[in-house]
Amino acid sequence: MFENDMKRKMASAIAKVHRAIEKGNGHTILSTGMTGDDARMAKAVVDAGVTMLEPNHPALALARGHKGVTSMHDAEQIRYEITVDQMAEATQGVRNVVGNDVYITVGIPGGFTEVVPIILEEKDFLNMALHGADGLHTHKSSLRDLEALVKMAHKYGLLVDAYIGLPTDLHTFGISAETPEDVKKVARQMEDIGTDMIGMMTGMSYEGVKSGQIHPLVKERLCAMVEEVSVPTLAEGGINLTNYKAFHDTKVNILVIGTAIDKMAEKAIQDAVRQFMFS
Amino acid sequence: MFENDMKRKMASAIAKVHRAIEKGNGHTILSTGMTGDDARMAKAVVDAGVTMLEPNHPALALARGHKGVTSMHDAEQIRYEITVDQMAEATQGVRNVVGNDVYITVGIPGGFTEVVPIILEEKDFLNMALHGADGLHTHKSSLRDLEALVKMAHKYGLLVDAYIGLPTDLHTFGISAETPEDVKKVARQMEDIGTDMIGMMTGMSYEGVKSGQIHPLVKERLCAMVEEVSVPTLAEGGINLTNYKAFHDTKVNILVIGTAIDKMAEKAIQDAVRQFMFS
Repeated sequence: MFENDMKRKMASAIAKVHRAIEKGNGHTILSTGMTGDDARMAKAVVDAGVTMLEPNHPALALARGHKGVTSMHDAEQIRYEITVDQMAEATQGVRNVVGNDVYITVGIPGGFTEVVPIILEEKDFLNMALHGADGLHTHKSSLRDLEALVKMAHKYGLLVDAYIGLPTDLHTFGISAETPEDVKKVARQMEDIGTDMIGMMTGMSYEGVKSGQIHPLVKERLCAMVEEVSVPTLAEGGINLTNYKAFHDTKVNILVIGTAIDKMAEKAIQDAVRQFMFS
Repeated sequence: MFENDMKRKMASAIAKVHRAIEKGNGHTILSTGMTGDDARMAKAVVDAGVTMLEPNHPALALARGHKGVTSMHDAEQIRYEITVDQMAEATQGVRNVVGNDVYITVGIPGGFTEVVPIILEEKDFLNMALHGADGLHTHKSSLRDLEALVKMAHKYGLLVDAYIGLPTDLHTFGISAETPEDVKKVARQMEDIGTDMIGMMTGMSYEGVKSGQIHPLVKERLCAMVEEVSVPTLAEGGINLTNYKAFHDTKVNILVIGTAIDKMAEKAIQDAVRQFMFS
């Protein structure tokens, strides 16, 4: 209805992303996992310099012990049972403590490639926009589904980050593209339909990758994507303290990091309680 | 209605506490803060050997960014706005991932000394008992209020841990007792009305306490309480990696630890993101 208000909202949101990237001389991180949905952890990483956060529905399933899941693999199977209202509440809580200068992109049920029919309605986009989301973190599997999502998101002033995957990926977290040429083609199409940030799924494992390196095939795909598009770029999956510098070499702008941070938090508290109990 | 069922439930719950204390040769910890209400963190500490957990309403206010609070001090002012339903949901999530052998005691609105009138009804106790709570972690300020709470809790098979404080404490987290003699008298009364575990608030600060020690006045009070009662005993407040061994010397059974663990988790993730972003 009030189109220009939403254009201004989106302009302000993408400006946060550009500021984050500039602050890191071309690189920043999108902090997810427990730092995305627990207000205490989100505040802690923002205090340490993080300016991009990502709450998402599978992580919230883990946070809330939904159906007793304790691994991300199991959480992905039941993530669609987390509601948009729960994501909105978690997002608002994080927004409350980190302020307005932090970019928040949210994974919601229906925004990923789900295994049951999930209907996203206009009220769901409105709900997220009213509860502190700057954008939606999405993993749709076709351009057509992505286009429908982008259109609705933009209507409510939300940006969209979307991803490219491999046809052989065990779980589908993006639009398929096999060769670097395919990657360029798909990335171009994603940009053309208005996707605000474009990412590559990089978690697939290959044999023979040395510690601290990225497999040549991943690097090739990532470089092809980065070269092709003018919007900010992301890499998601398998990024840790041993290999993140190799990701920087590809000139990708944003590293999505969740598991690596969660593991360090878990190790710290485990060390702490072991000292209290057994030393 | 079915009294003996609830007696059995309570017997099974206190057996968990005794097992925890025996496993640690007389000492264990009650892990709270983010390890009490975030299923990921709760699972992590249980995997490391913890068998007693405490979700509570002020910590949940911080977890959910309620009203934007970011300090425990501020959370205490608005903790009563967290609902029993929210505590039940958080408790059930933790229970789902840690299994039935872990003792879970829960702080709920109305169970602490609140600054607005909070009515706890029978359905609230039932709600907690049905959502995985073994007991209630309470901080009432009079024997009479505590007795009413214990009676209702026991009706629904929930144990109660309650605390003794100083009349001069900045925030009221227990029943007042000044001298060691007062402490013994109050502790005796608490046990007589059926309190299942009795604790001492030890967070009050005194000048001149050396690192790794407890102030003599705190130690004296704690020892008086431990000597007097036959139920399991707790110490809560100001316990950290430098002084916990001094607490063991008092023979108190259970150290309630939240802030010290949270701080270590926060430091670990801050170190992690700083490396990813700035190294």
